[in-house]
Amino acid sequence: MPQTSLMMTLQFSSSGTPVNIQAKHFLIPGLGRYDHKYSPKLPSKFPKASIFSSHQIPNPISHQPPVNQSVAAIVFGDGSESRLYPLTKRRSEGAIPIASNYRLIDAVVSNCINSNINKIYALTQFNSTSLNSHLSRAYSGAGLGKEGFVEVIAAYQSPEDQGWFQGTADAIRRCLWVLEEYPVAEFLVLPGHHLYKMDYQKVIESHRNRKSDITIVASNGITKRDQDPGVGVLKINTENQVMQYSLKSNKEPVNYAVAETLTRCSDSSYSYIPSMGIYLINRATMVNLLNNHFPKAVDFGTEVIRGALSLGMKVEAYLFEGYWEDMRSIEAFYQANMECIKKPNTGYNFCDRDSPVYTIPRNLPPTVVNDAMITDSVIGDGCILNRCKIKSTVVGMRTKIRDGAIIEDSVIMGSDVYQIEDGRESSIKSTSVPIGIGENTEIRKAIVDKNARIGKNVKIINKDNVEEGDREANGYIISGRIMVVLRSAEIPDNSIL
Amino acid sequence: MPQTSLMMTLQFSSSGTPVNIQAKHFLIPGLGRYDHKYSPKLPSKFPKASIFSSHQIPNPISHQPPVNQSVAAIVFGDGSESRLYPLTKRRSEGAIPIASNYRLIDAVVSNCINSNINKIYALTQFNSTSLNSHLSRAYSGAGLGKEGFVEVIAAYQSPEDQGWFQGTADAIRRCLWVLEEYPVAEFLVLPGHHLYKMDYQKVIESHRNRKSDITIVASNGITKRDQDPGVGVLKINTENQVMQYSLKSNKEPVNYAVAETLTRCSDSSYSYIPSMGIYLINRATMVNLLNNHFPKAVDFGTEVIRGALSLGMKVEAYLFEGYWEDMRSIEAFYQANMECIKKPNTGYNFCDRDSPVYTIPRNLPPTVVNDAMITDSVIGDGCILNRCKIKSTVVGMRTKIRDGAIIEDSVIMGSDVYQIEDGRESSIKSTSVPIGIGENTEIRKAIVDKNARIGKNVKIINKDNVEEGDREANGYIISGRIMVVLRSAEIPDNSIL
Amino acid sequence: MPQTSLMMTLQFSSSGTPVNIQAKHFLIPGLGRYDHKYSPKLPSKFPKASIFSSHQIPNPISHQPPVNQSVAAIVFGDGSESRLYPLTKRRSEGAIPIASNYRLIDAVVSNCINSNINKIYALTQFNSTSLNSHLSRAYSGAGLGKEGFVEVIAAYQSPEDQGWFQGTADAIRRCLWVLEEYPVAEFLVLPGHHLYKMDYQKVIESHRNRKSDITIVASNGITKRDQDPGVGVLKINTENQVMQYSLKSNKEPVNYAVAETLTRCSDSSYSYIPSMGIYLINRATMVNLLNNHFPKAVDFGTEVIRGALSLGMKVEAYLFEGYWEDMRSIEAFYQANMECIKKPNTGYNFCDRDSPVYTIPRNLPPTVVNDAMITDSVIGDGCILNRCKIKSTVVGMRTKIRDGAIIEDSVIMGSDVYQIEDGRESSIKSTSVPIGIGENTEIRKAIVDKNARIGKNVKIINKDNVEEGDREANGYIISGRIMVVLRSAEIPDNSIL
Amino acid sequence: MPQTSLMMTLQFSSSGTPVNIQAKHFLIPGLGRYDHKYSPKLPSKFPKASIFSSHQIPNPISHQPPVNQSVAAIVFGDGSESRLYPLTKRRSEGAIPIASNYRLIDAVVSNCINSNINKIYALTQFNSTSLNSHLSRAYSGAGLGKEGFVEVIAAYQSPEDQGWFQGTADAIRRCLWVLEEYPVAEFLVLPGHHLYKMDYQKVIESHRNRKSDITIVASNGITKRDQDPGVGVLKINTENQVMQYSLKSNKEPVNYAVAETLTRCSDSSYSYIPSMGIYLINRATMVNLLNNHFPKAVDFGTEVIRGALSLGMKVEAYLFEGYWEDMRSIEAFYQANMECIKKPNTGYNFCDRDSPVYTIPRNLPPTVVNDAMITDSVIGDGCILNRCKIKSTVVGMRTKIRDGAIIEDSVIMGSDVYQIEDGRESSIKSTSVPIGIGENTEIRKAIVDKNARIGKNVKIINKDNVEEGDREANGYIISGRIMVVLRSAEIPDNSIL
Repeated sequence: MPQTSLMMTLQFSSSGTPVNIQAKHFLIPGLGRYDHKYSPKLPSKFPKASIFSSHQIPNPISHQPPVNQSVAAIVFGDGSESRLYPLTKRRSEGAIPIASNYRLIDAVVSNCINSNINKIYALTQFNSTSLNSHLSRAYSGAGLGKEGFVEVIAAYQSPEDQGWFQGTADAIRRCLWVLEEYPVAEFLVLPGHHLYKMDYQKVIESHRNRKSDITIVASNGITKRDQDPGVGVLKINTENQVMQYSLKSNKEPVNYAVAETLTRCSDSSYSYIPSMGIYLINRATMVNLLNNHFPKAVDFGTEVIRGALSLGMKVEAYLFEGYWEDMRSIEAFYQANMECIKKPNTGYNFCDRDSPVYTIPRNLPPTVVNDAMITDSVIGDGCILNRCKIKSTVVGMRTKIRDGAIIEDSVIMGSDVYQIEDGRESSIKSTSVPIGIGENTEIRKAIVDKNARIGKNVKIINKDNVEEGDREANGYIISGRIMVVLRSAEIPDNSIL
Repeated sequence: MPQTSLMMTLQFSSSGTPVNIQAKHFLIPGLGRYDHKYSPKLPSKFPKASIFSSHQIPNPISHQPPVNQSVAAIVFGDGSESRLYPLTKRRSEGAIPIASNYRLIDAVVSNCINSNINKIYALTQFNSTSLNSHLSRAYSGAGLGKEGFVEVIAAYQSPEDQGWFQGTADAIRRCLWVLEEYPVAEFLVLPGHHLYKMDYQKVIESHRNRKSDITIVASNGITKRDQDPGVGVLKINTENQVMQYSLKSNKEPVNYAVAETLTRCSDSSYSYIPSMGIYLINRATMVNLLNNHFPKAVDFGTEVIRGALSLGMKVEAYLFEGYWEDMRSIEAFYQANMECIKKPNTGYNFCDRDSPVYTIPRNLPPTVVNDAMITDSVIGDGCILNRCKIKSTVVGMRTKIRDGAIIEDSVIMGSDVYQIEDGRESSIKSTSVPIGIGENTEIRKAIVDKNARIGKNVKIINKDNVEEGDREANGYIISGRIMVVLRSAEIPDNSIL
Repeated sequence: MPQTSLMMTLQFSSSGTPVNIQAKHFLIPGLGRYDHKYSPKLPSKFPKASIFSSHQIPNPISHQPPVNQSVAAIVFGDGSESRLYPLTKRRSEGAIPIASNYRLIDAVVSNCINSNINKIYALTQFNSTSLNSHLSRAYSGAGLGKEGFVEVIAAYQSPEDQGWFQGTADAIRRCLWVLEEYPVAEFLVLPGHHLYKMDYQKVIESHRNRKSDITIVASNGITKRDQDPGVGVLKINTENQVMQYSLKSNKEPVNYAVAETLTRCSDSSYSYIPSMGIYLINRATMVNLLNNHFPKAVDFGTEVIRGALSLGMKVEAYLFEGYWEDMRSIEAFYQANMECIKKPNTGYNFCDRDSPVYTIPRNLPPTVVNDAMITDSVIGDGCILNRCKIKSTVVGMRTKIRDGAIIEDSVIMGSDVYQIEDGRESSIKSTSVPIGIGENTEIRKAIVDKNARIGKNVKIINKDNVEEGDREANGYIISGRIMVVLRSAEIPDNSIL
Repeated sequence: MPQTSLMMTLQFSSSGTPVNIQAKHFLIPGLGRYDHKYSPKLPSKFPKASIFSSHQIPNPISHQPPVNQSVAAIVFGDGSESRLYPLTKRRSEGAIPIASNYRLIDAVVSNCINSNINKIYALTQFNSTSLNSHLSRAYSGAGLGKEGFVEVIAAYQSPEDQGWFQGTADAIRRCLWVLEEYPVAEFLVLPGHHLYKMDYQKVIESHRNRKSDITIVASNGITKRDQDPGVGVLKINTENQVMQYSLKSNKEPVNYAVAETLTRCSDSSYSYIPSMGIYLINRATMVNLLNNHFPKAVDFGTEVIRGALSLGMKVEAYLFEGYWEDMRSIEAFYQANMECIKKPNTGYNFCDRDSPVYTIPRNLPPTVVNDAMITDSVIGDGCILNRCKIKSTVVGMRTKIRDGAIIEDSVIMGSDVYQIEDGRESSIKSTSVPIGIGENTEIRKAIVDKNARIGKNVKIINKDNVEEGDREANGYIISGRIMVVLRSAEIPDNSIL
């Protein structure tokens, strides 16, 4: 593949560098902050043929050495600055339950497994406990083949460094001594909370064919959401070579009039396309960039990638056209759940036999239904559904819905345990509302987090039609008109929210 | 253990009792044939206090040696003479699916695990493949603790013996060299296809407290079924000592007028009670009986137990009062499934948190429901339910029910795989009926075995109200007015059965 | 696939070749009897270039569909007619311990794993227990990746068929309903007791490139052993197409003067080469041959393969040049062990990092050495070596060697358990010789099977220099001047053998 | 580590609260700092009978509820203030390799498993990576029985709390929401880096029999080491009730003349005994103490336990008499390794069949020995020993020792991988010393950490007889005359240290 356009446009390095990113409270800020989806509407005259298509390249990967020993994935379990709060109150983004039976990070780990990448390091430090627990139970041994593993690397203190991870680049740098354990050829850096299906082997093929130093996956898909500020934007030439890495400004939406240049058109030799925050990078290049060239870089995208461009490294874009959801908001999370109900499935397909989604194997009893009308919904394992109506709803594992309840357009995450209702524990908690949805309760357009206790005759309907509201003391918040009941929250009988 | 009565007293073999057992085609005949449930109605004046109650005995089991190292379970995966045919056409009884998510043998293995018995040998030879597969996937390692295992011992040939197992006693004898590997104190012999919950530790406590050679578990529960012929009946004294082991005659139901004496009453010093086919027996006693005293015994109950009695060994009964179903017929299997739907649960509780039922961990997507009315049913993992009505039905894993279907009072076992309906495989099987239940099909009082393909506009309703019928060539049989569709059978569109 | 030539052309059955196979006591006879190694010395003028070399063929396997979903392996756990007796007294050939830490079948299963074949069916019926146990503990889940399994299919009875497997073809036929569960493209038939390293993907590539119906792997390697009778010999043309499948006669070693034609030479358009008993065969072809063309065939090689040739099917040879040992005798087994000690390693490499050998993961304490001189030996996990000399010996797991012992040129298989020597069990076995090698005992050129109890001052030296001898009652036999002590045998103090 | 704030200021117990401990760099300081071994020589007149002996108490634990569901262990993976540096440079104390095949934390986790405690939370934050990796690989699923787990809780950030764990009490408090997931009756708090065998069930029995709020395990054993400063000392009465919890002063060894009162004697009603840092505490008591009474307590021993005493809670001592090593120094670690070689074993028994030590299951090839004289040593799995002499040495997994090497009185930890020496990696590291021990190298009284590369003709003999020395830049330090070569250090050819 010819690669004529060179690096002469290297203006970034003349800036004097420093991107001066402040380490926020929330770890690994860069990943969440910059590398987000941007969704230009491609004009119909868009020259498809000029875009690199991995399908046209003959597979250069010989059987020796085994392809799954040559790439290690680095997955970030934490994402962003809590845009999914309160779902992240007790867990990192990757551990948020989705589609009844899964956790967000299952999508990315399953992509790895289905792409025969079986050495997976999960870096995490923000509310890491439930992510740790999930990954070690879901993927220990089984499913990863010979020598495969999912190794959780939680932030830790050492004699040399007492601090937390300061960002994505810092996290990788501090873990390099672990990451280098296996003699892989490349590292694949992945956000752990995005929802998409990708065969990473095609990225690897493209990377190797083009002999790139770094390959960035960029989204070429059509999405319905508006362009978000804070996204990482790649300027690429017609050879898909990355010329520049910039950010959509967060503060200056006004001068965003460059929008039209963000779309690629045939009369231009450049186009702009949003980064997905997925990087494939050669092992030696990674070590060199983090330790030698940019030993103080904190964020991977804005500092290391830009730095690599400034050094004249060969940075290429791989264009991905499928469904991609980066969970930038409660509403995005809600929509992603709703899309997995729709028929035909326009979003992420959890039931795909060819690229199955893996998660913790379960052992639950069948769902018991007494008298339910269920429409356009998915029901997780081991629920107990009394006389109730369920419509357009994602019902999570072990959900208990009592007589007369009506649930619509909602995401019920279910419960971690079955509550025993035989009185044995009544002495302790006799007055408390039991886990699940109470009698004659009505829930519309809500997300009910795990282990919530919704009483009888409750209405969770956003009665005042609030757009945004923080009622955390009362057990819920409102975000984009969506009611979000907190994990383990208790909503008393007869409440009307 | 006094053992003064020697072999010379072995009148048993010379007695008129029918020892002349023919080795039938189906292995391990004795277990299925003799040791079955018998259900006397106890009179109200029944002297409860005189029955041994393990609750009143202080726990004599010290922590040293660990209790779970001291007993090994021997589970028979095959049961009887195909009374559950055609469900046993391709599998042994223990491998029959039950209650959506389980296999019959899970009940017994879970009893073992919940009783801290973690050395389990499963003996099998009749259609052993799916049982092997299930046990090794469900219980390998996990759930069995340190040094625990479920070891499947399939019938095999050896230089000394080229034949199949000839019966329960023969099977154990030939496997003794394996069974003796761990230095257990007792063996617990268990049929693998019975449905009940029992804490075997209580049996062990009773056995050790009373210093018995053999303890037989007998059913003291109340059941609604009539007394079956062919059951093993224990004559016990007021101390629960077994005086005699006899059989309810198969051929002479007439002279079964002794029924009244089968109930225990206060004015009698003896009572009769049905054996459950569960034996706890000291290790040395087992070896001695099988190798020295009765080296040619084929069946355990009728030959070895009787022989032990004839030798004057101390054989005690442990009375069990809970739910017990020994699956003597298709109807019994059907009823057991129906009972797990009922509310309140009067049968076997698959959802009990304190004594959970284990099985293969699964990884299926949630059940997708488009528009279903579901009443008094249980739904297994990963079903696809289109516009349909389901009532009083057990719906197994991965069941697909298409638009307009109506299912009532039935057991749908589900499918092993999702059939892809996107045309990829259409070239091969374009004309065939897809797996699942077709559009506008009606099913009532039926058992639909796994992977069955039921076409459109089919009626499985036993239209001629047949009591018993063999239509195996057409893909089904009728047993006790219950329609049984065979595994992988194909019922063409518009069929009315 | 033209199939005009019908059964009537099946001259093979009318030929003088000995098709008259008696169903021997020992199952799967064909595999062991016919498909054995033959080792011609290739002349130097051998036209290497004309032999198909898979290295020169570009990899045609696209990433879609995943290569490891497209081939299922069928491994025969039992091999032959007990040529390895007494090592097979209590186990099938595949379960024989080798190289301290392994079982024979680990070599073949590891080949599968290292070739990304993760659907493995192990067919077994002869002494299957320890093989079952090994396979389910060693390979359940871990190491086999997503959807991978090793499924043991023991011989079983079913309503249609009460008999044992009658041979390799019969075994596969009866298991076809299980084997067809996954939609694989080809079946790979493998003997489970051969020792070699092969990348089966290369066989698959060759098979698919050449669009063969059947590919047979044949040994092109140089070995030092003489040509064995009873081996399957392929007559191939210069295109590696198989023209004929014949047998080296067992009974007529005299007329074996055709030996020179068995070597391939440049002036001939044909050559003769020994089959390794490894067959890759298309799924539909397999079903068709077994069910339609040859529904009564018992042996795969002599009946089905010959039949396929007679039908005009495209049968190709894949030539393999590496080390291959088919364990035709006790001596061959002994030599294979000895070769894994030698330096440089000329035989099978158990320590190869690139193609590791898998087995049961172990948890043993380190080997404790008090005062040992060890030369040219390998030592398994968890041994206890007192003051002793060990030379040119394979020492198996948990072997205990006591003071003053001398072991040379031997294979000590070790023990399944540590015997506790603190007197707790002394009441039972106080007089018996403990497991392991006793004080001042001398062992030379011997195979000591597991759990053997060798007393003090014993000499196992074949003092009378016997060539062959059956002393099984005394706990050993002699085969090819090699002393073989039986499993769990007890050799009393001061014995001189 | 200086510890200027003394204990004479112990107003805490009377103050009713806050001890204002500054969070040191090293997490969980209290555990390491205070609760250490103290080893009084008991006078022979010591009234044994007055010490509580759990053997005399009838087992009050009924089978319902199962004993292993009622206690959860909280294991601290990090220990102290780096007294084991440099072994803790890249790992927490619990992850230090010991006795060839194990990690320190295996001892405590195995105690839990052998005591039927299968809910284990491992809290860690200091160099947690290798501990995480070890625990999740070693104990995921297998060995822990139904519902058992080892859940690693790494320090993490959350919206409420951005800091690291400040101490043992703080760590438990912050994890309470996880720890409370299972309805256990008591928590068992355990340091993760101590070496001892204890049946915790006996502690539980004692605790329950005496209806204690808190039970502290104290060492009543005889050890050869001197009394360390900084140990937690319990003042107990003749009923083993704890009256006071004090600390041995670090700075004032002079006034340690109270030593004689530290021994219990018959004429005194009190005695002093060192705490082992093991606490069994009722669930509700734990929550109450941490959240209500002492919400700012950082250290568990000095603050929470003392606080409980000040509140008048029932705090009892359980006296333990076996071997106990708390790894207070490099020398202690070295001695613990040496003791596992000795015969008879006076230290910790790694080979005990009744209370086995668990760890990561391994799959290594046997140890290959070319010509070695080995005396009084233990050899881990998969070593390669050329012509060498090994004496009184612990040789870890995958250790490679080359020709002419002499190793004495040392601990060689081995290697994580086999280094391939076939030149494939030579382009990168051609000049570097290979992993292992080089030709003709001599090592005496040294600890060689993992993956070290010791060149040829090296002498590691502490030639200048240095007592303490920091040569970390050169790849080693000296501690108590013991040479400690760092992990992955490279010692060039011909070095003499």
